[in-house]
Amino acid sequence: MQLKMTIDEIHSFLDGVFPQVEGQFEVLALSLEETIVRMNVSDAHLRPGGTVSGPSMFALADVAYYIATLSLIGPKALTVTTNCSIDFMRKPAPSDMIAKARVLKLGKSLSVGDVMLYSEGMEKPVAHANLTYSIPRD
Amino acid sequence: MQLKMTIDEIHSFLDGVFPQVEGQFEVLALSLEETIVRMNVSDAHLRPGGTVSGPSMFALADVAYYIATLSLIGPKALTVTTNCSIDFMRKPAPSDMIAKARVLKLGKSLSVGDVMLYSEGMEKPVAHANLTYSIPRD
Amino acid sequence: MQLKMTIDEIHSFLDGVFPQVEGQFEVLALSLEETIVRMNVSDAHLRPGGTVSGPSMFALADVAYYIATLSLIGPKALTVTTNCSIDFMRKPAPSDMIAKARVLKLGKSLSVGDVMLYSEGMEKPVAHANLTYSIPRD
Amino acid sequence: MQLKMTIDEIHSFLDGVFPQVEGQFEVLALSLEETIVRMNVSDAHLRPGGTVSGPSMFALADVAYYIATLSLIGPKALTVTTNCSIDFMRKPAPSDMIAKARVLKLGKSLSVGDVMLYSEGMEKPVAHANLTYSIPRD
Repeated sequence: MQLKMTIDEIHSFLDGVFPQVEGQFEVLALSLEETIVRMNVSDAHLRPGGTVSGPSMFALADVAYYIATLSLIGPKALTVTTNCSIDFMRKPAPSDMIAKARVLKLGKSLSVGDVMLYSEGMEKPVAHANLTYSIPRD
Repeated sequence: MQLKMTIDEIHSFLDGVFPQVEGQFEVLALSLEETIVRMNVSDAHLRPGGTVSGPSMFALADVAYYIATLSLIGPKALTVTTNCSIDFMRKPAPSDMIAKARVLKLGKSLSVGDVMLYSEGMEKPVAHANLTYSIPRD
Repeated sequence: MQLKMTIDEIHSFLDGVFPQVEGQFEVLALSLEETIVRMNVSDAHLRPGGTVSGPSMFALADVAYYIATLSLIGPKALTVTTNCSIDFMRKPAPSDMIAKARVLKLGKSLSVGDVMLYSEGMEKPVAHANLTYSIPRD
Repeated sequence: MQLKMTIDEIHSFLDGVFPQVEGQFEVLALSLEETIVRMNVSDAHLRPGGTVSGPSMFALADVAYYIATLSLIGPKALTVTTNCSIDFMRKPAPSDMIAKARVLKLGKSLSVGDVMLYSEGMEKPVAHANLTYSIPRD
């Protein structure tokens, strides 16, 4: 197995299908084992007290796992989340967030894996998400 | 057991602690068995194709369960989500969404329950969320 | 939509594919909205202290949802669990257990729903399971 | 932080509180980062076709995470599972199973982490479980 998309191809694809989030997410590294994505945190992602909101962390986990799956199957925009379960473990810092996604099982119709979410500058993870995506049949 | 907050008290409390979402969420009904919340869907909640985005559905499920729990324990702002698992089952319509939350177990330190999410005008549920909140000790 | 199997057909099918659990599970009611299954609790299901063990509750939730799905799609033995998430909410009694399963979404390749687990004689639920089954393509 | 129990102490403790599973589970390695547990698979764990059953995999994940938590907090028997979510990814072999558990967050009242399950002789994981345990206050 080898990667079907480069980081540049991923960025172009996301700009095309999700123009509203352009500039929010940046793929830092891409390999068969791990996909690393940064979320540039702005005021829109924060909740009172200055921490990153739950929906923003959900968005980051979801995008990171989408990218990890597309890098293995190619640009199939209709790939959709069927389940996302997040354990919120620590209060995030008001800094950018880093997601590390890994695909644990890539089947014909399902991609199953997890994403660890970190606040930049904190060693321990802030949240852990498990996701399942449904892959459209050709 | 009886409710510790009215709908008006919930609205005032949310406006105080989450001013950035003011006007997005409206409690339609509140009882020991069920809390019903509407999300007024605007362009900010949509993704290309006109459907409500995953993070927006996460936000609605999270707020609805927060309200359901606070109505039973009173206004404890430090009550926080520890887990949220969502099954995305059908494509939402580009209309307002309705959440129906129920608390299945209210313990001293955890509130466990679920939320069914509907698009207005669709009979069948769009998504089903299960949540656990941690309740601060007094 | 109508049911594709009767209670008797379900019992015969289970005895054929899972002979090792014969007599443990009994379908009490079957409809499009709800499937009710009893687990006859014996010493093998108990843990010290006399409560029903976690693996036994998992087995009941899994069988109940399998039956609920098969009743809608017919006897496809290769239908398999892809995810099961259980919230354990109250200590079960050392009595028989009752599972109430409902299918929330029946797609071409996935069946998604939940199961509420009760101890006979207790009003409130003991556990709540959410399951996804993969359905083989014909 | 350092381990509060040795492998021998874990084995003695389990034999005392769960005598019915004596001999089924063996702790192979114990560290702050990872707990490795073997399940000696016998006919009781199998389902027709010779694969390990779902409830048996649930039992292994649950025991492995219990051990991982106790090794950090000491022998508190009343530590109980509040949530277990399992993704079943590949058909297990009819061989012994190995669980690798890691604690992602140890709080005062909750332990949150995951367990990867392997069939001996297969490189890729068979299942991935995420668990939350409630820790009794002293």
